[in-house]
Amino acid sequence: MIIVLKPGISKQQETAVLKEIRSRGYRPHVMRGVARTVIGAIGDELTHRSLETLTTVFPKIVESVMPVQKRYKLVSREAHPANSTVRAREHVIGGKKFHVMAGPCSVESEKQLLKTAVAVKAAGATILRGGAFKPRTSPYEFQGLGEKGLKLLAKARAETGLAVVTELLSETQTEVVAEYADIIQIGARNSQNFQLLIAAAKTGKPILLKRGLSMKIEEWLLAGEYVLANENCNLMFCERGIRTFESYTRNTLDLSAIPIIKKESHCPIVIDPSQAAGRADLVAALCKGAVAMGADALLIEVHPNPAEAWSDGAQQITLDGFANLMRELRPLIHAAGRE
Amino acid sequence: MIIVLKPGISKQQETAVLKEIRSRGYRPHVMRGVARTVIGAIGDELTHRSLETLTTVFPKIVESVMPVQKRYKLVSREAHPANSTVRAREHVIGGKKFHVMAGPCSVESEKQLLKTAVAVKAAGATILRGGAFKPRTSPYEFQGLGEKGLKLLAKARAETGLAVVTELLSETQTEVVAEYADIIQIGARNSQNFQLLIAAAKTGKPILLKRGLSMKIEEWLLAGEYVLANENCNLMFCERGIRTFESYTRNTLDLSAIPIIKKESHCPIVIDPSQAAGRADLVAALCKGAVAMGADALLIEVHPNPAEAWSDGAQQITLDGFANLMRELRPLIHAAGRE
Amino acid sequence: MIIVLKPGISKQQETAVLKEIRSRGYRPHVMRGVARTVIGAIGDELTHRSLETLTTVFPKIVESVMPVQKRYKLVSREAHPANSTVRAREHVIGGKKFHVMAGPCSVESEKQLLKTAVAVKAAGATILRGGAFKPRTSPYEFQGLGEKGLKLLAKARAETGLAVVTELLSETQTEVVAEYADIIQIGARNSQNFQLLIAAAKTGKPILLKRGLSMKIEEWLLAGEYVLANENCNLMFCERGIRTFESYTRNTLDLSAIPIIKKESHCPIVIDPSQAAGRADLVAALCKGAVAMGADALLIEVHPNPAEAWSDGAQQITLDGFANLMRELRPLIHAAGRE
Amino acid sequence: MIIVLKPGISKQQETAVLKEIRSRGYRPHVMRGVARTVIGAIGDELTHRSLETLTTVFPKIVESVMPVQKRYKLVSREAHPANSTVRAREHVIGGKKFHVMAGPCSVESEKQLLKTAVAVKAAGATILRGGAFKPRTSPYEFQGLGEKGLKLLAKARAETGLAVVTELLSETQTEVVAEYADIIQIGARNSQNFQLLIAAAKTGKPILLKRGLSMKIEEWLLAGEYVLANENCNLMFCERGIRTFESYTRNTLDLSAIPIIKKESHCPIVIDPSQAAGRADLVAALCKGAVAMGADALLIEVHPNPAEAWSDGAQQITLDGFANLMRELRPLIHAAGRE
Repeated sequence: MIIVLKPGISKQQETAVLKEIRSRGYRPHVMRGVARTVIGAIGDELTHRSLETLTTVFPKIVESVMPVQKRYKLVSREAHPANSTVRAREHVIGGKKFHVMAGPCSVESEKQLLKTAVAVKAAGATILRGGAFKPRTSPYEFQGLGEKGLKLLAKARAETGLAVVTELLSETQTEVVAEYADIIQIGARNSQNFQLLIAAAKTGKPILLKRGLSMKIEEWLLAGEYVLANENCNLMFCERGIRTFESYTRNTLDLSAIPIIKKESHCPIVIDPSQAAGRADLVAALCKGAVAMGADALLIEVHPNPAEAWSDGAQQITLDGFANLMRELRPLIHAAGRE
Repeated sequence: MIIVLKPGISKQQETAVLKEIRSRGYRPHVMRGVARTVIGAIGDELTHRSLETLTTVFPKIVESVMPVQKRYKLVSREAHPANSTVRAREHVIGGKKFHVMAGPCSVESEKQLLKTAVAVKAAGATILRGGAFKPRTSPYEFQGLGEKGLKLLAKARAETGLAVVTELLSETQTEVVAEYADIIQIGARNSQNFQLLIAAAKTGKPILLKRGLSMKIEEWLLAGEYVLANENCNLMFCERGIRTFESYTRNTLDLSAIPIIKKESHCPIVIDPSQAAGRADLVAALCKGAVAMGADALLIEVHPNPAEAWSDGAQQITLDGFANLMRELRPLIHAAGRE
Repeated sequence: MIIVLKPGISKQQETAVLKEIRSRGYRPHVMRGVARTVIGAIGDELTHRSLETLTTVFPKIVESVMPVQKRYKLVSREAHPANSTVRAREHVIGGKKFHVMAGPCSVESEKQLLKTAVAVKAAGATILRGGAFKPRTSPYEFQGLGEKGLKLLAKARAETGLAVVTELLSETQTEVVAEYADIIQIGARNSQNFQLLIAAAKTGKPILLKRGLSMKIEEWLLAGEYVLANENCNLMFCERGIRTFESYTRNTLDLSAIPIIKKESHCPIVIDPSQAAGRADLVAALCKGAVAMGADALLIEVHPNPAEAWSDGAQQITLDGFANLMRELRPLIHAAGRE
Repeated sequence: MIIVLKPGISKQQETAVLKEIRSRGYRPHVMRGVARTVIGAIGDELTHRSLETLTTVFPKIVESVMPVQKRYKLVSREAHPANSTVRAREHVIGGKKFHVMAGPCSVESEKQLLKTAVAVKAAGATILRGGAFKPRTSPYEFQGLGEKGLKLLAKARAETGLAVVTELLSETQTEVVAEYADIIQIGARNSQNFQLLIAAAKTGKPILLKRGLSMKIEEWLLAGEYVLANENCNLMFCERGIRTFESYTRNTLDLSAIPIIKKESHCPIVIDPSQAAGRADLVAALCKGAVAMGADALLIEVHPNPAEAWSDGAQQITLDGFANLMRELRPLIHAAGRE
């Protein structure tokens, strides 16, 4: 920790601060600058008691306290310099092969799901997405088919060989979701629901952790740390747009998250353009950007008839649209050095 | 719903849109404007299937679709024109009397909690706050005393007569938290954890619903709707700062939420300046603004020794600081027409 | 400056960084921590060449560089511990007396302006606001009466004794605006138009500097520094709402700016609730909060007939509304220790 | 315009609103819905007086007023369905050929500039960027070489054949900047300095309009409208990052602006990754995304020795770094169908 003192501090005041720092288990180190005195407090910030309250204890003496260490460990590149990979059935995400996860926003019926699954598989997708439990802003909106939806996902998997990713909404449904899912998705609204993260982690299943609407990169990495700290190293980060002042798109897709996660962490990074844009007409362009920037996978909402979708119809693309998109992405995937 | 067509649309294209609107259970009403044709779709937006996908079905014809109805019902002023009040023990929030909820960020020990409870009661608080289960950004931070903390809160209540507000983090802890709490707090990170909202609502206990870090007013009202729709009308909204670009404060306290909630809803509005500012030196000024603007209650973090606090020490004020603040607030409370 | 090195840095690498720091005129001071080595670079950050590029020069060695000094000097409390006051005609802003600046968004006609001026004066305002040059988002909107508007403001001043505040939009109009205005307003959109700030400062007139839509407090203080560094110490800061994700209000009024500016700077702070809310029905509540929190003045849009206003009609209050508001504010002004 | 009435409005109240709408030159059209009555006001929103004040005139009757028409005309795709191109010397931006604008943040010396110009030309750039007048957050930072810098840019152009883009900061410098520049850049801080936009437009030179830090797409298009409405159709939009809560990057590059500008407007779109990221290590990835998503050009900060740069050293890449980047971009440029 770095403690910056205000200008014009007396020797006596400084001594009081030094004493307090020592009493909290740190070794202080004084640097007298031109305009201010700065104290380095030497000790492990993760295990010692924090010094951040010094601004409250000494409001007239201490100007600011700045942490030096990063707060995340297990998800960091430092902890694991090589890329880590996540296996879902026979599919390995984070390696040479680029993956596309596709499917409807909500599982609605066997016909809708199977038709979609067959089509996305044919177009090149390897993983089927589909919501069985749906978090909805309004209590009056469709909340998902529940376990029946999970069973339909399992059926689609059996028929197509696609792996299944689906969202876990509630600790009380952990067991049933883990039974059917190959990858458990933690949604943006639950990205700091730490009890849910712990419950999901303990299943040992791969976790797809969406970034919260107003989550800083550091907070996202720390949410991921909850997964690894609970002995599950099968973690993928998924950027799906952050909330900004712009209202043309539903959210602003922060594609810079790709190189940042690659730099700070060893875990794979997946991009969800559908939730970000909230409108189908921008999905293709966002996918292209994500591929070129080094994403490991895409998560795309596809529906046989978006107009009839029970949720988020405006952002789902058609089966034909998806097939076209896959064709357009191919040269970019190769240009990005992927298969 | 209002459907805006693009310029230069043919009669035939228009007919296709009208047919689709009818097929979804709405009655279309065409208005030919100077620059564009607009269609009003008459029908109840809460029960009919949404028309928002028309932009996807007819991407070359339909420019935009705008909802007319508000999406929330039970929390709205329209549904209940008078102010509603919430009772916690003998305290009635939302009426003539202004309330202050005060106490430590985390319950740490019997001594810490009782000392605080006695002091805040003496200074005029009526409700004791204190976290037993703590949501922490990092898995390496103190996570709360759990049920032991709840028991200490109950003990402090028995000794002081203060009602108790404490946070519920997990559906699996609903029963135990409801056993000890007079008011169940839903934190900002769980403000759209709808399963948790439903579980909390079903206890019948008063709910203090914090605004999420990037929650629009409409989404907040809809999250509240989950409580009322689950037959619990004891709902209070609590503004605690939203996330913006500004980094001087931890969050930006949106005090305009007070007149807005008063206008849109009948439920009481509580202000939490401590979480918003993230620093003790701004708490007093923010409290004054909240009182003058018509808040029903304040939620303030107070600690006998903030420097020693196990969480968020920098934002907690001292017992003396709290007593001073209460003295300073008194004339403003009267000027605002409260007791 | 504090330079944080990455973990596992060799002695040789460290030496290279130390050499570079010395070559830029700073004296390095090494602190070896548990997890990382930190270097304090001692020297005046305002005059020496910045060390921030060390992350680029040594991307594999240097993790981050953190400034220690504040970047603003003349506007800071440290430079001038007492409150400074600004005089406009016989009115002194920043002292014991609370001021209200009121008037129409745009000057439209002699009748409109005089009627407003007489009414706001009678209700207790001391300063007349009114835009003669208007910055408009669209080129097709009313751009102000220009010099004719300035003359009408002068006439209203002559008839009522109110001082005049009006916006300067263009360096080329500095002379003419300074001729008529008692206070020159720099609008939010021009808050980092440094050439305009310098031109305005050089007139010696009091400057009302609005906060930009996405301006951090530090940037606002630095924009004010441009005024004081150009030998004009008659500076007032004016908070008028920042841009956030919330769309219920046009902007989010950051009332915490009041205690922050009071803490960091000696200059007066003015609150503009009309621009922030963008809707008249929230203005009264925001004014009350501002008064209670210690603002030095308010800037309120008032129009004899908002429905007929040529700009921003939805946010202007009526003459009667203003008189009522002034009555409601009085007890709060006294409770806040002002006259 | 669409006017939504509150529920439970009497016939008499409705009549009053209808009368007001007619008096403002619109033809009202009533639609009685299930929950609310909606009025369509038929007339050209660009030329008639706005109806937005109806919420103020009838606060108890009118709930909201929603515009139907877009506010921009000349920059819109509707006005000019084909892509428009901008010519700077012999270079045509917005056509088949992809362009790279590169050079230092600030022009510092003849040696620095020429070395950079020769290197970026050799690597494939066609346009040289360099700031002669610099807008700086603090008055104590380097403000640019001024006209001397412009002359160096002209010299570099003469020696390399690169066209020159440089920023205009002040109306009073319009003539001199237009004399030397092939493209006039309007910076983010001046993006709503409409007087500057008009002055720049009137030179007839191509304009590169950066997006403001908190500018909505619609506001950006309207700022561009100021250029076209002043009879200059040589407009390029340049996305350079928006301000959000995220602090890992200086700004958040909104790459979705590429497909959006392409959809809404006919003008070329340029991406500036350097200003957005504020750190050199992310520039390459952001460039790749921009190319894949269909940008017409890139604007990249390049410096022979970023560590020695007089401004923004941390975000400038080296000459070698630039050459490598150009090599990496080539396959993506081809995959995106460009030359």
